[in-house]
Amino acid sequence: MTFPTYFEAFDARQMLADYPIGEAFVQRYTGMSRDELRALQNARFLKLMARGWQIPFYQRLWGNQGIESGDIRSLDDITKLPVYDKADLMASIADHPPYGDFAGLGAGGERSPVIFHTTSGTTGRPQALLFGPKGREVTNLLVGRMYRWQGLRPDDVVQSVYGHGMINGGHYIREAVTHFTNSLFLSAGTGIETRSANQVQLMADFGVTVLVGFVDYIRKLAEVARDAGLIEQIGIRMICGHLGTEDRASTEAAWGGAKAFDWYGVGDTGSIAGEGPERDGLYVWEDAQYLELLDVDTGTPVGTGETGDMVVTCLFKDDVAPCIRFNTHDITHELGGRGEIAFKRIAGFKGRSDNMVKLRGINVFPHAIGAIIENRSDLTGEYVCRLTRDPATQRDDMLVVLESRGGSDQAQLAALLRQGLNVEVQVALVAPGETATLTQIDVRQKPIRLIDERGL
Amino acid sequence: MTFPTYFEAFDARQMLADYPIGEAFVQRYTGMSRDELRALQNARFLKLMARGWQIPFYQRLWGNQGIESGDIRSLDDITKLPVYDKADLMASIADHPPYGDFAGLGAGGERSPVIFHTTSGTTGRPQALLFGPKGREVTNLLVGRMYRWQGLRPDDVVQSVYGHGMINGGHYIREAVTHFTNSLFLSAGTGIETRSANQVQLMADFGVTVLVGFVDYIRKLAEVARDAGLIEQIGIRMICGHLGTEDRASTEAAWGGAKAFDWYGVGDTGSIAGEGPERDGLYVWEDAQYLELLDVDTGTPVGTGETGDMVVTCLFKDDVAPCIRFNTHDITHELGGRGEIAFKRIAGFKGRSDNMVKLRGINVFPHAIGAIIENRSDLTGEYVCRLTRDPATQRDDMLVVLESRGGSDQAQLAALLRQGLNVEVQVALVAPGETATLTQIDVRQKPIRLIDERGL
Repeated sequence: MTFPTYFEAFDARQMLADYPIGEAFVQRYTGMSRDELRALQNARFLKLMARGWQIPFYQRLWGNQGIESGDIRSLDDITKLPVYDKADLMASIADHPPYGDFAGLGAGGERSPVIFHTTSGTTGRPQALLFGPKGREVTNLLVGRMYRWQGLRPDDVVQSVYGHGMINGGHYIREAVTHFTNSLFLSAGTGIETRSANQVQLMADFGVTVLVGFVDYIRKLAEVARDAGLIEQIGIRMICGHLGTEDRASTEAAWGGAKAFDWYGVGDTGSIAGEGPERDGLYVWEDAQYLELLDVDTGTPVGTGETGDMVVTCLFKDDVAPCIRFNTHDITHELGGRGEIAFKRIAGFKGRSDNMVKLRGINVFPHAIGAIIENRSDLTGEYVCRLTRDPATQRDDMLVVLESRGGSDQAQLAALLRQGLNVEVQVALVAPGETATLTQIDVRQKPIRLIDERGL
Repeated sequence: MTFPTYFEAFDARQMLADYPIGEAFVQRYTGMSRDELRALQNARFLKLMARGWQIPFYQRLWGNQGIESGDIRSLDDITKLPVYDKADLMASIADHPPYGDFAGLGAGGERSPVIFHTTSGTTGRPQALLFGPKGREVTNLLVGRMYRWQGLRPDDVVQSVYGHGMINGGHYIREAVTHFTNSLFLSAGTGIETRSANQVQLMADFGVTVLVGFVDYIRKLAEVARDAGLIEQIGIRMICGHLGTEDRASTEAAWGGAKAFDWYGVGDTGSIAGEGPERDGLYVWEDAQYLELLDVDTGTPVGTGETGDMVVTCLFKDDVAPCIRFNTHDITHELGGRGEIAFKRIAGFKGRSDNMVKLRGINVFPHAIGAIIENRSDLTGEYVCRLTRDPATQRDDMLVVLESRGGSDQAQLAALLRQGLNVEVQVALVAPGETATLTQIDVRQKPIRLIDERGL
């Protein structure tokens, strides 16, 4: 059978011309005017919309609002389109299992090349993340380009502690570094893939200079290196992770003054924004990502400095699973003034507008616990989660308080929750009715399931 | 800084022309004469040798034998070159840490793009596996081409249980399937990355039709699927793994009559040979791999049907870490007659000419245990390993018998060995001197450290 494979399905050289990296990136966007950038975005947006109209998910989403293709004639019309979020994708998957109808995969033998992963945290069935070759390699490119702008050099040795398996993260970052930076790359993965003692030994053996991944684990590895007597041997000069609301200074101090950089992105969209070399806000990669900040309650655009939901349109993702006005429900605000290049800057991840919790890199939805513990005679089904942060290690932990009628096995329940949530949590058992004062179940229509005690 | 990145460093279209896949592969090699094939190999070999002479490792290896570049004028002269093996690579790494001097990496800022992994089992410092973009993508192509020849279709859904992290296997197979087959690919990884219960749920949820990986774990997953009540829902039609000395029939029966295919390769070389659709021997991918079978003791070529060490020259790997007469110490014999295409056929993996053990996909060197348990006052340092196979599950296990002077913690030792060997083993403690009858340490210069009881 003959069909175009990955390398035949997109033009890598054209991509590098359209999305320059290295010096060409800085040159292209240092002097560019906002009007010129807008024209570039507009051309890409119109190509993307043509693809969007071919996708059943968007036909339904837009059609339900009475929108016709002629209504969207330029990027100025984007606000006429409805936003959507993960719940819409999960509904699409429920109605059209297992991939949903948002990807535009060719049927059967005509299937085009596709990269498939799942999101790290789920509420039941895992969410499919799907990428075509071009969409995938541009997301990779955006990360590689960012690392290089932040100062990554070909003689750097990068260790990644992002996980592999079905999860997108580790594979994505491995592709980003190996395809677009020429730095040597160690795909160590999580502490489950490579034990922490072996992680720090790798750093010492292979002269690792840069760490990428979730910063709570990167901080923990500094302790492990210290305990193993290896900290002096290891010369980490750069850390690139998701600082968000994490403490930059303690991360840098843990690794002897390494420079830490923040960036932001979600699985569906790839990298949306990242710090430049001067670390003064996160530049939105506006040649690839069109970012709107919308009021959490009204959905209308907020002004500079005002907090809004990040709603993303991936201008480059016109092959598989286009993202057109995807509401991440992550909040931030735009910074004033102008940075080093034409792209606008945001403050970075400032929280969730819903109550998802990121626990050691895994998205945890407290509401998912209900489904995990339902139909058990020993439990009432009532529960509440308490999120705490250890001030010394900055490690977040979640205590799940379950109402037991007696005869419950605490360890078995912890294992059950660990499997269902994909992350370790603590379990406490209380008598029936004892969570009610915390959940306010008697007085609220939607009981409180999460109590965030990290700020206390 | 400007430098060529992955996609700029090789020509994907030229590669697909040089190493055809799909129908073009079968067409090209069905009618080709052995002379024509030899001419193709010879041209690639001469290009490879030019690269080899640039590599310090080969300059030393060949120079020590008094060989000069003019001595090797065609593939007929290959037998003038010495073979080398993993011990030579480990010595190169010891002398030139951490990567050795066999890769030909550019220094510092001029470093060319490189893919870096380590081998799964080690005797101390992990062995670096290094690939340039072309060398890497041809190894990927050879696997993708093989899967497709064996019958993989674009509408198949492939689940891989090869591990990720630093290990090459999972990343390699993911690249092979996603870059060269268009089948949908699930990078589930080992049971540590995706628990077995979740592995079989994935198969059911995403309609997996093909399993790839180590067959002992693939067999185990059939039991898990049966216990979970999912076996009827899952329609596995094809299994591609390393059958070697494993039982094809029990693997196929476990998954309700799926067709199982064998292939062979090692980390340094990529895929060397694999079964065709008729499953009558393993075709050596002779457009890419030049395979010699050499007598284990004398190093001279053996005749058809006679057992020899597989010594491999990767004709395509002329960018990073060329392999020129690499002795795998894996043994096989050549089959007589002619198969479907011009490539010669071998019987596949028939054992090791040294005593490395493959335990659930991980290479285990029993001799490595000495270093792990040395300098402990509670142990004598004497040990012996007993390898057994459960007849019901076909699972291999290793019992490590250690001599203890008393006060040893069996669980702690098992954890220590697990960390050092990267695989779980059982531990038994005996009194000092009690391993001597098994190791014959009193009568042999090299004591026996491994007793293979799998055939009993």
